Amino acid sequence: MLNTILPNNTPAYNGLAETWARMHRFGHLESIAGWDQAANMPPKGNEARAAALAEVAALLHRMQTDAQLPGQMQQAEQEALSDHQRANLREMRRQWQGSNALPESLVQRQKMATSRCEHAWRRQRPANDWHGFLGNFREVLSLAREEAERLSQQSGMPKYDALMDRFEPGMTCAQVDAVFGEVRQWLPGLIQQVLAKQTRDKPIQPVGPFALPAQRQLCEQAMRLLGFDFEAGRLDVSTHPFCGGVPEDVRMTTRFCSDDFLGSLMGTVHETGHGRYEQNLPREWLGQPVADARSMALHESQSLSFEMQLGAHPGFVRRIAPLVSQAFGAQPAFEPDNLLLLMTRVKPRLIRVDADEVTYAAHIILRYEIEKPLIEGEIEAEDIPALWDAKMMELLGLDTRGNFKDGPLQDVHWPEALFGYFPCYSLGAMYAAQWFAAMRRALPTLDQRIEAGDFSPVFDWLRTNIWTQASRWTTDELARRASGELLNPAHLKAHLQARYL
Amino acid sequence: MLNTILPNNTPAYNGLAETWARMHRFGHLESIAGWDQAANMPPKGNEARAAALAEVAALLHRMQTDAQLPGQMQQAEQEALSDHQRANLREMRRQWQGSNALPESLVQRQKMATSRCEHAWRRQRPANDWHGFLGNFREVLSLAREEAERLSQQSGMPKYDALMDRFEPGMTCAQVDAVFGEVRQWLPGLIQQVLAKQTRDKPIQPVGPFALPAQRQLCEQAMRLLGFDFEAGRLDVSTHPFCGGVPEDVRMTTRFCSDDFLGSLMGTVHETGHGRYEQNLPREWLGQPVADARSMALHESQSLSFEMQLGAHPGFVRRIAPLVSQAFGAQPAFEPDNLLLLMTRVKPRLIRVDADEVTYAAHIILRYEIEKPLIEGEIEAEDIPALWDAKMMELLGLDTRGNFKDGPLQDVHWPEALFGYFPCYSLGAMYAAQWFAAMRRALPTLDQRIEAGDFSPVFDWLRTNIWTQASRWTTDELARRASGELLNPAHLKAHLQARYL
Repeated sequence: MLNTILPNNTPAYNGLAETWARMHRFGHLESIAGWDQAANMPPKGNEARAAALAEVAALLHRMQTDAQLPGQMQQAEQEALSDHQRANLREMRRQWQGSNALPESLVQRQKMATSRCEHAWRRQRPANDWHGFLGNFREVLSLAREEAERLSQQSGMPKYDALMDRFEPGMTCAQVDAVFGEVRQWLPGLIQQVLAKQTRDKPIQPVGPFALPAQRQLCEQAMRLLGFDFEAGRLDVSTHPFCGGVPEDVRMTTRFCSDDFLGSLMGTVHETGHGRYEQNLPREWLGQPVADARSMALHESQSLSFEMQLGAHPGFVRRIAPLVSQAFGAQPAFEPDNLLLLMTRVKPRLIRVDADEVTYAAHIILRYEIEKPLIEGEIEAEDIPALWDAKMMELLGLDTRGNFKDGPLQDVHWPEALFGYFPCYSLGAMYAAQWFAAMRRALPTLDQRIEAGDFSPVFDWLRTNIWTQASRWTTDELARRASGELLNPAHLKAHLQARYL
Repeated sequence: MLNTILPNNTPAYNGLAETWARMHRFGHLESIAGWDQAANMPPKGNEARAAALAEVAALLHRMQTDAQLPGQMQQAEQEALSDHQRANLREMRRQWQGSNALPESLVQRQKMATSRCEHAWRRQRPANDWHGFLGNFREVLSLAREEAERLSQQSGMPKYDALMDRFEPGMTCAQVDAVFGEVRQWLPGLIQQVLAKQTRDKPIQPVGPFALPAQRQLCEQAMRLLGFDFEAGRLDVSTHPFCGGVPEDVRMTTRFCSDDFLGSLMGTVHETGHGRYEQNLPREWLGQPVADARSMALHESQSLSFEMQLGAHPGFVRRIAPLVSQAFGAQPAFEPDNLLLLMTRVKPRLIRVDADEVTYAAHIILRYEIEKPLIEGEIEAEDIPALWDAKMMELLGLDTRGNFKDGPLQDVHWPEALFGYFPCYSLGAMYAAQWFAAMRRALPTLDQRIEAGDFSPVFDWLRTNIWTQASRWTTDELARRASGELLNPAHLKAHLQARYL
């Protein structure tokens, strides 16, 4: 299959493409075994599975750090490559830099520190034990700073930018500061306006229990409505829902709770956005970095296009409402207007993952405003709770003093040293709004089509502009080609105002 | 974990042990991905999965044929090894010989020929197209003869012995000829006696349909009764039932048919025997060849100990009968005596996999008597049908003329060139009878214990004598230590006479 895209006069490039194809195939096994670990594996299988996953990770690391690669990449630069191949080479280089930037000893120390911190955090969080957490987290932070320092020296980027670049290539603090700074201006006021408006709405609560097989069937029906290809993927159950597997065989997971069906339904709609992105990456390039999903924010823009833009659209809710009644028997709560009220209910909450789309950005801005100075060395780990309390009050009006477990201990990201990841969630929400604004400009009847239950214009636009483009362009260039402009938070604001005010 | 068994003064051995541990970890991913392919994978995932599995198979082949291994093994022979380590080294050498015996070009030609033959066979069998099959099978046979010739030259074994040795190390045609020759003397007569006796029995047929969830639950209950550890394994569904996964996480599969529950129930009991063998291989040596299951016949002796020796024992049937009634509602057919009649019904059939334990050996002897002269070059592929017809009439009294699809086209083994495999099935049945005879000598009250629903003496004996011994000994030595004698078909005869006459 690969041979069809490999001409004879590009031997260095061809060698690189074959190396990446091999890594892709090993990555396939890693990914399926990882999915299996979450969805199927009985507890006593864990030790052997961890050892097997570590073995293939070590193999992939050896391949990524093979001393021949830099020379091959330099040679390939001189070869007569197509634009697509050149983009592929650019992405190879980016991945290579990511894999070769850090000395092995630092990577190992980080692995140990984050593993220790994350493992202890599982107990410390329910115990509200901030001080116990600090004991491990200081080391995690110190190593993350060392990592940021090294990445910064190599790339010339500022330190936090260098960390963020791992998840969101090309994104800078300058851009995030501008975007979040703008959102910060209007968000707290908007939240108050929405809350005031919603005091009038009294949605009827659904009455459970909701049988799990019926919930599962409902989720699968929603996935079908949303175009998920069950010939190239599955839905299973895991403690933490995710979208895994490989582009050719997407493994989505969800979890079911017998007294709430909306959580798993909308969670499934969310993951289906990730799933369709993966299922529609360009087939002919699969296995090459140019066919990888562009970035974390772009991926999130797909899940949020599905969950928020489309999933909470009255046209989608009207299609899903009869399926809900069919699954659980008719209830007044399942009337489309009431379901819509339930799905767009806004309430400031302590927990990010429970947040609605209006308050969500506040959670992210807060984390960004803490982790950026943390990495830059302007504040220390000890300073987090006071900052957290102040910002939660300022942004959401919530008192979090002394409540560490629902405060800075709530996310796995910090114990795992995923600094620079949080912004992607909100950038994804902004891109999603921006894509829908572009769709409406291209197709002024978009909302009538969705109202009529026809979602194909949404899928067609996303397929053409996002999914099949994969990593062909930088994120900025992709945004410009897709929507005519760079990331612009005005679209999120307009979306929230239109839907909630 | 491995370090605890690696002293400092055995560097060559330690290097080998680490290489095998790495191969075991890659094999883990291969095994889980293979299980997933059969149990979960949607159709469009197949191409990428096949490529990923081929990649890891190629990696394992490179590791197994690493030019350093022979020198390392020679050095290790000189080191101060424990008996267990020495047995491990013996098994490493055996595996190395298996992987290095054939030139890569022959392996590739075989892969292509068997893949072509097997693929066409899937259509040719239902179409009863023997002549079409011959077109591909001649090439498969010719390559198998070349393989046998090479293996024979290297090992000094006769050609068919050399093929059989891949599955059943140490087994020879001399031994199989003696054993099967003996069985051939009494089997046709015994079958006729049993048939005459069973004309008096008229078992009541169960009335379906049997709901699949209830069948599944019944199978899981049977697995629990038989000691399967669900913390270290699962039961799932696949088209062809098998026992896969890894010793730490055994993945059994079955298939359900709504108008027959006994098939999946007894199939599950069979696979549970394989599963418990794997689950009870010696933990401290897992990953090393000395901890692998001993051989195909030994593995089959475990599944048949469960399915035939124990599963069709009145004591087991009495335990399972109330569970059957609980699953599907009471029926006269579910009375223990009637269930036992159903499970021990003997009838000469065309299809091996449908055969009962009395007629089963006839199917194997027939195949052995055809494939041995086929490999030795004494007969040609064209001669198979006439031999098949004659032997089916002689052994089972069945007329198979012109019925290729239920005759020589019925098994996947020949299109896949698995010559030398068939004998293992019947050797397994003989070993199983031999183990139970040894158990009864060691514990004269064994049958009372089983009658009373206590199966633990069976499990204890198998754990001590078979499971935890793994590949510590040659098969002959294992048999001698476990039962005081080499393979002896008299125990199968005595078992069949006791149960069926």
